[in-house]
Amino acid sequence: MSETLASIGEFGLIHRIHKLLQKEKVHSPGVTVGIGDDTASFQPRAGYEVLVTCDCLVEGRHYLPEHITPLDLGRRAMIVNISDIGAMGGQPLYAIISLGLRADTLVTDVETMYRGFTFELKPFNASIIGGNITKMEDAIFINITLIGEVEQGKLMLRSTANPGDVILVTEYLGQAAAGLELLSRAQATEDLHKHPLVRSYITPSHRAREGQAIARSGYATALIDTSDGFLGDLGHICQESNVGAVVIQEKLPISEDLRQAAIELSQDPLELFLKDSDDYELIITCSPDNEAKVRSAIASVSDVSVSEVGRITDATGDIQLMLPDGSHRRLIPSGWDHFAT
Amino acid sequence: MSETLASIGEFGLIHRIHKLLQKEKVHSPGVTVGIGDDTASFQPRAGYEVLVTCDCLVEGRHYLPEHITPLDLGRRAMIVNISDIGAMGGQPLYAIISLGLRADTLVTDVETMYRGFTFELKPFNASIIGGNITKMEDAIFINITLIGEVEQGKLMLRSTANPGDVILVTEYLGQAAAGLELLSRAQATEDLHKHPLVRSYITPSHRAREGQAIARSGYATALIDTSDGFLGDLGHICQESNVGAVVIQEKLPISEDLRQAAIELSQDPLELFLKDSDDYELIITCSPDNEAKVRSAIASVSDVSVSEVGRITDATGDIQLMLPDGSHRRLIPSGWDHFAT
Repeated sequence: MSETLASIGEFGLIHRIHKLLQKEKVHSPGVTVGIGDDTASFQPRAGYEVLVTCDCLVEGRHYLPEHITPLDLGRRAMIVNISDIGAMGGQPLYAIISLGLRADTLVTDVETMYRGFTFELKPFNASIIGGNITKMEDAIFINITLIGEVEQGKLMLRSTANPGDVILVTEYLGQAAAGLELLSRAQATEDLHKHPLVRSYITPSHRAREGQAIARSGYATALIDTSDGFLGDLGHICQESNVGAVVIQEKLPISEDLRQAAIELSQDPLELFLKDSDDYELIITCSPDNEAKVRSAIASVSDVSVSEVGRITDATGDIQLMLPDGSHRRLIPSGWDHFAT
Repeated sequence: MSETLASIGEFGLIHRIHKLLQKEKVHSPGVTVGIGDDTASFQPRAGYEVLVTCDCLVEGRHYLPEHITPLDLGRRAMIVNISDIGAMGGQPLYAIISLGLRADTLVTDVETMYRGFTFELKPFNASIIGGNITKMEDAIFINITLIGEVEQGKLMLRSTANPGDVILVTEYLGQAAAGLELLSRAQATEDLHKHPLVRSYITPSHRAREGQAIARSGYATALIDTSDGFLGDLGHICQESNVGAVVIQEKLPISEDLRQAAIELSQDPLELFLKDSDDYELIITCSPDNEAKVRSAIASVSDVSVSEVGRITDATGDIQLMLPDGSHRRLIPSGWDHFAT
């Protein structure tokens, strides 16, 4: 019979997770107390600031168990947090995992999810140093607090874009939104899990290495990850930096996959690009004089494409889309709002 | 009509919380980025280690909404985390709050809960620097990650007790367990909220100041908070330190309130003392030569009572209770297990 949490208990599960993490043999520098005492502890590095972020995935809301394996779920939950650390220019270091699980959850599924966490942490030599497990009656949740570091003075903010700056984005946006729509419209018989847009939705690629390289270069003015979609996150930059933006429709990096999916979905690829989409790419602003240096900083660590899509303006809070005929259309950022929708 | 989260939305709620926290005017030292960017960040102090703990309260499991006000719920959620930082000898600094809320949750209730958080943080000049809000369909959860600091080399562990050490406990134990039983057996018409044992259960007193003083003194060998009950947490010390213990029944600090409640509940006060109880007191071990110095370190910051209740032995994992007639009874720690019960 398959073991469940009810059969091995909370302490039994913690013991199993502890053993699994020891087998994984990741020894992050600086940890002075790991799992097993009242708190974890670490020795921060001199000359570095500590970054802290927190994100939570809830079953049925942020993922559908029938569409994601426990391994991918673990990866995804960690990726969204790594992306936030990267968007500040930082390096992920230590994760604290708080799980709400049902009594009938399979122990092997939890173990596989932890393998997903460590799969994403290992490239950074980052590790899980603590957590909490509690019982839920209904929906499962995975709450991760991720701690990172960034060299003092190298922190990248969303509130520091300047009028005249160019706006750059990595790779293609709208991919995850289209992947999610393909999944939700699919028939039970279809296997979409290898579709590139569905993969983009399930296990997006964070750009933490690129974020770190941008921060180290010192040539960008503002940085944000696109967890609220292109328009939502460009909106955050504009609001927090007290600036506006003009975006040139023809320059928006819309992938061939997205154009194809838009036809299948009878949707406008531009709308899929602009709206809420969990792509975890980067929006970067910098002075036009420094664009080449920012591009070369990114190229030094990664082969992701970088597109210049527009300019920051001094029209506070105003985001304009320039259409192919030269006319303008005002864009209103919405952002993902869990409660209003 | 009362505002709910559905009516103001996630971003509306975050805005309200942000405003409330600004009004509270707590400026913790070291914060370089607070709420509002991809991550929070802080500058750690040279010569200090960083502590991280995480605890989650789930509605219906860790609290019953009909028995706790939003203010007390906020206080309780923060106290359990402060207690963990204190049990390592540390000072609480920064909190990250992750909430799972229903769409019909009242905005004023959330604001009042935040006042409960800050009520407990303020005495330490600690503040909320980040968080996450997500929608749940059923049970609400409150997940807090609390970050603290401790002077390098002063960290207090549960794994460092030595045979021959005396075992000390602060104040009275079993109080919260009795309070919870009184609450759960109460008739709807009874108002038990001012009953001292019920207060002990709803808003226990953490001993973080005492923990810090003990750590600074350098005279204790091991320290733990009693979040799993006296026996559960003494069991953790024994297991992690590879030691045993003898506990003297006549010396156990059983309050007059507890004796009275035990009669009402037809229970043995000793069992209430030993079993799972969320009292958040401290169990301290130290060499007999240093007991007076540990007591005086505690007395320098607090007037809590300190009782010597027994000795650490070299009988690994064996905990004996010495009865008034001099005979011994073996005690088996259980600890609170959410899934097995």
